[in-house]
Amino acid sequence: MKLLEDKIIKEGKVLDGGILKVDGFLNHRLDCALIGELGADIAREFESAGATLIMTVESSGISIAYAAGEKLRLPVLVAKKHRSLNISDGVYTAPVFSFTHKVENTVVVSREYLTAGEKVLVVDDFLASGNAALGLLSLIEQAGATCVGFVAAIEKSEQGGRKLIEEKGVKVYSLARIKELRAGDIKFD
Amino acid sequence: MKLLEDKIIKEGKVLDGGILKVDGFLNHRLDCALIGELGADIAREFESAGATLIMTVESSGISIAYAAGEKLRLPVLVAKKHRSLNISDGVYTAPVFSFTHKVENTVVVSREYLTAGEKVLVVDDFLASGNAALGLLSLIEQAGATCVGFVAAIEKSEQGGRKLIEEKGVKVYSLARIKELRAGDIKFD
Repeated sequence: MKLLEDKIIKEGKVLDGGILKVDGFLNHRLDCALIGELGADIAREFESAGATLIMTVESSGISIAYAAGEKLRLPVLVAKKHRSLNISDGVYTAPVFSFTHKVENTVVVSREYLTAGEKVLVVDDFLASGNAALGLLSLIEQAGATCVGFVAAIEKSEQGGRKLIEEKGVKVYSLARIKELRAGDIKFD
Repeated sequence: MKLLEDKIIKEGKVLDGGILKVDGFLNHRLDCALIGELGADIAREFESAGATLIMTVESSGISIAYAAGEKLRLPVLVAKKHRSLNISDGVYTAPVFSFTHKVENTVVVSREYLTAGEKVLVVDDFLASGNAALGLLSLIEQAGATCVGFVAAIEKSEQGGRKLIEEKGVKVYSLARIKELRAGDIKFD
């Protein structure tokens, strides 16, 4: 999606360790007009996929998932992120290792809101190693629900996450797919 | 706002200790159509307030703030919530005690995105004791910016938060104002 690629080139910041900061428009400060366009694009791509629910994980994915949910007229389930496994009954949980923060989190959703038979479209801000994605897919499997697609606003394709998700039989769709990431030189697939 | 009051009566759950759970439509599972209406209502109320920026705090306020930001064509700044004060330079911070989780958090925004002269409309999901609100107002003061209003989707009026904010000269607007909260008996102001 050219709009997002242009924004990344113009305002994204490349930090040491191949970290792309998009704090100015996607994470910390939200460019609502841009995010609305991301939601519309996701809705166009998945309008015939038969999704019944959108799922994301707090907190950077929420606005994008909401924008898609509004357009597709679907509810959005926000998986919570916890530092511990000390969690109440009535939930599905999966471990997720964050390479950015070097910490293992647990993602959690209530069994009440993720039920067998749901067709879930997962929407997140980033796809890199695929660790967070696999955690969310695990929650969907545990519930006996189906994943009809995985959307990332930004994919860092050389980190291999796409392959792990596709091996599960899930379609991956990213709005900007970064092949190479160096300060002053960002290349897209 | 009758739409939200009806939803609270129909689907809200009252837990011990006067906690209102709205997980089914506002926090964990998002009713995008409802949240879009909340955003539209906030936009109508503040369309002439001259706001240049909306601010919220992760993660339950994000979708409501985004919905308002989209309607008002304003960016949304999402304050981060941390467990510690061990935070990098270049930020404003303020302590916030969470009565729900019995823990002191720190709210954080980047100085780059909250600058002197901004007119900030704060949007959050709940207003109870006003602790979180005062933390956000402190960030705005530190930046030399102005707060043009504080919006809560749900206010628990007997907990007194409104008074603390109004004492700072800030207008408070809530979409559902709960006077009494008992299981099976929720009264609105």
